Amino acid sequence: MPVARVVVDVMLKPEILDPQGQAVQRALPRLGFEGISDVRQGKRFELEVAGPLDEAALTRIREMAETFLANTVIEDFTVKVEDVDGAKAES
Amino acid sequence: MPVARVVVDVMLKPEILDPQGQAVQRALPRLGFEGISDVRQGKRFELEVAGPLDEAALTRIREMAETFLANTVIEDFTVKVEDVDGAKAES
Repeated sequence: MPVARVVVDVMLKPEILDPQGQAVQRALPRLGFEGISDVRQGKRFELEVAGPLDEAALTRIREMAETFLANTVIEDFTVKVEDVDGAKAES
Repeated sequence: MPVARVVVDVMLKPEILDPQGQAVQRALPRLGFEGISDVRQGKRFELEVAGPLDEAALTRIREMAETFLANTVIEDFTVKVEDVDGAKAES
């Protein structure tokens, strides 16, 4: 059976301070990498969906991302369907 | 000055056990979400690049990802340029 992959990216909202990202950004010049003005660090979830990836399944996954994977008080999320061959489609 | 955004995704290699992803996958049915056969959890870095995003800058970012953002013994990474004018642009 074909397995579809859905990617959920969860990032802190732009107005929320991101100390992890700041730590990375400050470390870069010390390590010899200049020219990066900002770094934000977030989470990426790759979900393998068994069964058809129809609109109902995507709605369910968006609900799951909103209630469980992301804390929407401080985080934004995006749901993308990823072609296992590498191409991507925004949903 | 235009600022370009580069996204570095860091995921555990497929052959490496991912206990965080497994914990999420096992929690989903308890929360009422069926049909997700596998979950992998990784990191997403959004880098704002000051200056031109030419091939030299991208090469530098790939080097940075390889030596600093990812542990290439157990992790794979991808580097993507993201269009800031896209749907996610600030309004």
